[in-house]
Amino acid sequence: MNISSTKQSRLIFMMKKYVFGAPFSTDAVVISLPCEEGSLPYFETDTSEGLKFTLTLSAKDAVYGLGESVRGINKRGYLYRGFCSDDPNQTEATNSLYGAHNFMVIEQGDKVFGVFFDCPSLINFDIAFTYCDKLIVSSDNTNMNVFIIDGNSCYEIIREFRKAIGMSYIPPMWAFGYTQSRWSYAERDSVRRVAKGYRDCHIPLDAIYLDIDYMERYKDFTVDKEAFGDLKEFADEMKKQNIRLVPIIDAGVKIEDGYDVYEEGVKNGYFCTDKDGKPFEACVWPGMTHFPDFLNPDARLWFGEKYKILTDMGIEGFWNDMNEPAIFYSQQSVDKAHELVKDFAKEETLTLQGFETLKGYFGSRQNCGEDYSAFYHNTPQGRYCHKNVHNLYGYNMTRSAAEGLEKTDPDKRFLLFSRASYIGMHRYSGIWTGDNFSWWSHILAELRVLPGLNMCGFLYVGADLGGFGCECTRDLLLRWLSLGIFTPLMRNHAACGTREQECYQFENPEDFKHIIDLRYRLIPYIYSEYMKAALSGDMMFKPLAFEFPEDEVAKRTEDQILLGNEVMIAPVYTQNAIGRYVYLPEEMTAVRMNKGELTFTQMEKGHHFVEIAENEVVFYIRKDKAIPLCKPAMCTEELDRENLELIGTGNEYVLYTDDGISKDFGKNENYRTLTK
Amino acid sequence: MNISSTKQSRLIFMMKKYVFGAPFSTDAVVISLPCEEGSLPYFETDTSEGLKFTLTLSAKDAVYGLGESVRGINKRGYLYRGFCSDDPNQTEATNSLYGAHNFMVIEQGDKVFGVFFDCPSLINFDIAFTYCDKLIVSSDNTNMNVFIIDGNSCYEIIREFRKAIGMSYIPPMWAFGYTQSRWSYAERDSVRRVAKGYRDCHIPLDAIYLDIDYMERYKDFTVDKEAFGDLKEFADEMKKQNIRLVPIIDAGVKIEDGYDVYEEGVKNGYFCTDKDGKPFEACVWPGMTHFPDFLNPDARLWFGEKYKILTDMGIEGFWNDMNEPAIFYSQQSVDKAHELVKDFAKEETLTLQGFETLKGYFGSRQNCGEDYSAFYHNTPQGRYCHKNVHNLYGYNMTRSAAEGLEKTDPDKRFLLFSRASYIGMHRYSGIWTGDNFSWWSHILAELRVLPGLNMCGFLYVGADLGGFGCECTRDLLLRWLSLGIFTPLMRNHAACGTREQECYQFENPEDFKHIIDLRYRLIPYIYSEYMKAALSGDMMFKPLAFEFPEDEVAKRTEDQILLGNEVMIAPVYTQNAIGRYVYLPEEMTAVRMNKGELTFTQMEKGHHFVEIAENEVVFYIRKDKAIPLCKPAMCTEELDRENLELIGTGNEYVLYTDDGISKDFGKNENYRTLTK
Repeated sequence: MNISSTKQSRLIFMMKKYVFGAPFSTDAVVISLPCEEGSLPYFETDTSEGLKFTLTLSAKDAVYGLGESVRGINKRGYLYRGFCSDDPNQTEATNSLYGAHNFMVIEQGDKVFGVFFDCPSLINFDIAFTYCDKLIVSSDNTNMNVFIIDGNSCYEIIREFRKAIGMSYIPPMWAFGYTQSRWSYAERDSVRRVAKGYRDCHIPLDAIYLDIDYMERYKDFTVDKEAFGDLKEFADEMKKQNIRLVPIIDAGVKIEDGYDVYEEGVKNGYFCTDKDGKPFEACVWPGMTHFPDFLNPDARLWFGEKYKILTDMGIEGFWNDMNEPAIFYSQQSVDKAHELVKDFAKEETLTLQGFETLKGYFGSRQNCGEDYSAFYHNTPQGRYCHKNVHNLYGYNMTRSAAEGLEKTDPDKRFLLFSRASYIGMHRYSGIWTGDNFSWWSHILAELRVLPGLNMCGFLYVGADLGGFGCECTRDLLLRWLSLGIFTPLMRNHAACGTREQECYQFENPEDFKHIIDLRYRLIPYIYSEYMKAALSGDMMFKPLAFEFPEDEVAKRTEDQILLGNEVMIAPVYTQNAIGRYVYLPEEMTAVRMNKGELTFTQMEKGHHFVEIAENEVVFYIRKDKAIPLCKPAMCTEELDRENLELIGTGNEYVLYTDDGISKDFGKNENYRTLTK
Repeated sequence: MNISSTKQSRLIFMMKKYVFGAPFSTDAVVISLPCEEGSLPYFETDTSEGLKFTLTLSAKDAVYGLGESVRGINKRGYLYRGFCSDDPNQTEATNSLYGAHNFMVIEQGDKVFGVFFDCPSLINFDIAFTYCDKLIVSSDNTNMNVFIIDGNSCYEIIREFRKAIGMSYIPPMWAFGYTQSRWSYAERDSVRRVAKGYRDCHIPLDAIYLDIDYMERYKDFTVDKEAFGDLKEFADEMKKQNIRLVPIIDAGVKIEDGYDVYEEGVKNGYFCTDKDGKPFEACVWPGMTHFPDFLNPDARLWFGEKYKILTDMGIEGFWNDMNEPAIFYSQQSVDKAHELVKDFAKEETLTLQGFETLKGYFGSRQNCGEDYSAFYHNTPQGRYCHKNVHNLYGYNMTRSAAEGLEKTDPDKRFLLFSRASYIGMHRYSGIWTGDNFSWWSHILAELRVLPGLNMCGFLYVGADLGGFGCECTRDLLLRWLSLGIFTPLMRNHAACGTREQECYQFENPEDFKHIIDLRYRLIPYIYSEYMKAALSGDMMFKPLAFEFPEDEVAKRTEDQILLGNEVMIAPVYTQNAIGRYVYLPEEMTAVRMNKGELTFTQMEKGHHFVEIAENEVVFYIRKDKAIPLCKPAMCTEELDRENLELIGTGNEYVLYTDDGISKDFGKNENYRTLTK
């Protein structure tokens, strides 16, 4: 028996599948497991009304997971919903974000186990909210698989879960560079100004994103020629500066006669349909659109192949947006609004009640349940109302893109990330955490979400640095970048109408340069840890609780995390602070970057107040560990990944390295032991 | 020359008045000062477009003040607006809250000075936002007084400012008890259940608030007899349990034939008028209303006397709400909406543009600038458009109430607080900080706002404990109460539709009892420090920065404050935490309350991690200081304020005490030195 078959048999033993009703197959789990007989362990199951699972918690028990969600690493004390949501108001009261990631690891007394509710529709998690000692999971959906994973530690359980859901997406090396976005750089000269702004200040940059305005009237796979001319030529021009262009693709396909994507979709029945079988109409950025039926494999294939239109122009990366799917309002809402308007027009005056009825109607159309109940998918498993498979939409849009790109160039890695997601999508792409704000609390929110995302397989992740909505300040961006330099996706992005927040827009851009230079010096390490996590099914970002389960302080530390096996990060996330408190669960080396120079301080286990100026970065290398550093460079292409310096008190580091672009990864020769 | 005339002459020297244009007299400043010749010191003044004042800041300079506003104690790094705003979405990006408190103390290099922009309309504060080194104050209003206060310390400047704006409101002693509110306890039995809920759990309680539903169709100074019967009888019934009822009064007066307040107001011209001189119509809770013209002294007198209707029923306290004034929409918006509706009804279908026009119109009517520009006040200084005196509306509503209550019973203190406010209103009432959320970050927000409010004269202050909007959890309420026990106004309040958050609704109510018991044990101290601050013009809540100006860590500490001269508070404000970091700028005594027992630990100057369970409170007594404690009681009436125990390392404490209800305060015999 060889090692892999041993693992397989262990896996079957550890992960068990419990089937309720006749579940829609989500393809989240890629291994096949027998259906267990008997009742779901740990939980009390109630099938009297929908499905309801109740677990008793003692005061010290912790609940980890739920991927993209608000609040802490330990999810106790709130209500969450597994339902992909386009809610551009991410506060600590937001119950669901763009992704539905229904996997948790629960420490219950001396036991620890994992549970995955593979539910494609709305599912509710009441984690010691209604009752301090109850975790209650409930859904109207009576058809779902529930997986229980036993193991000896959080890590062990997560590794088994990750094996079951398949290997995480691996981006190209250049996608680890610093990148800049804005809604929107709407024509070539804007993009050129951004490139020049960075290059003139000697701040590294690897890519510039194109938001919706690069398209012709927001039509997917078109380019506004007036604004961008020949995109291939322009992409070449940028590529010569080692800057990639990364266009956005939205879910909705504009209804417009003569637009090939629209016409092909209608002709072939590739769009979601209403109850009468006609393509469903929903208004998003392009105006009225149809939604490609990504749960129909033919439609998925067809849409995915369209990405070739842009890759043929030299494009090597995409971000898929609006794929919850977001709906501003549907044609059925517009029609009903017109009826209401006609009714109220007949009256002599508009009454207060009339005003409120109309205000209420217009104000409640966005992403409303009525619309999600009004369209259908033709899937190999039958015709399904959208609301019953809602969580799978963005996932399958991105699967469509990944499969299309794979066909185009099977051996090439493309950059791909999505807003909406479900577990399973992690095999095809990364995610960004959607429309956050230029809030200090959103620095901490990003830090806290990273381990949960990793648990669910999402490794290529990052938040909009500097914040998408609201007004960014120089100090906020500096502090946020001090976290962002550690995240695989490192993108500064901002909304239309907000302050320009490219680094060079602020005073003393050299402060930004020094921080981003440090990112580039760390890329060999970050890439290596990313690849190890992807290839082994481990987490790249870890709660202190997982690594130091006996340490009561570490277990409740919610503003520091571990990166890989060597590093701890603890960014400053409050305004006008001169530093922050840091807890060291063991002796570590503090690495301080000041004006590009690194200094090292040995620090003892325990509590510390660490002064950190706005233009400094401090991170920590664990005891007897070392990490590689390279020289700074203006882009990933120019990184010297051969000549690496080891820092830290350890004597060696096993570096993973490869060509960064082909899919020929994970071979033994990709690992190299560096020694001091 | 006696002491008070010396002070007066010093004051004139320290505070200087600079006049721009012909300012509307706000009565914020109650002393008369000559107009200075020459330009405003410190600032560069630009009068080319409105008024613009620019000050250069160096990197370490700090800006304190702005009263009720978001973000830190040090206001650097954001944009604020002085404009009373009913924005029920208090986030760190909110530029203005309910109060307009345009006073700042600025540390510029070695100097420190105060500045008060006495601007009754919108004024903008760009505090190192646009430029890292500039404080820019700007307004379209070219008519305002600007006061500059020089001094040797923040305290000295603030004391001078407070003398200039007059003594702060002093509430009755019972208003320092714990109080419970909800929108709404809509009939007697609900109120009785709350009283019983608390009394059964032996949790102290001094008052229950009545939100808008106690009224008959939301008409001010009426009582819904069906729900409350004879309010006098019911108030008596509650008073026998030592529980006061505190009804709400809203700004808008319902338009309803036969309603005396409406009819008198119309007849006497006491309402704000539109450009044609007709009473302006705005929709709020009662439906269409008129706004009393509180800037007209006759109207103010008339409205203020109405409070007697309720005091005659045994009511001893009020909260004034919706007085920014909040406008859901005006009759002019309804009329315009009807025109739009009629236009769009004519078309065969509603276009997307049509849908968006209507959605945009209905969604933008609340508190819109068009409405604030459309009504007028008849003031002794002439007829003024509301937008030019907007910030004075809630202030003068509350002045009306206070003056009315004073007439009713000149020697009695009533509880009175308001949502909207302006400096000057602090003489008449307290404030609560409006519609916050059940967010952990709003615990910290409350802590941070306290010193700024005190700077501006607002001493009787508090936030809705447990949070007004969103869903409260047991742990959130416990932690929030651990701050709330130190604030003069201690009120648990929640919105319609949210989870019930009275303490007894949660598991183990004895944990709540122990925390609120501690409040009652501290009332002699809190009351004493309140009175001293009110009588001397000092702050009750102080930033560490003011007390330890040489200590660089203390200067940037934003999550601890000092209470009076003896105590430091540092509540836990994060979920699932086992404790928090605390910085001691000097040796202190930690006082830990656990299950009602107090233990004392001497702690050294420096950084500490302090473990604090959810049901514990820890606070700190400064070196060589002592504070009095009494025995717990179920209400303030039952407090034994005579038999006090001194705790802390000091040997004495000067206690201020009085009868707690008459206005005969501040006499020498009110002070008593307690010794160990």
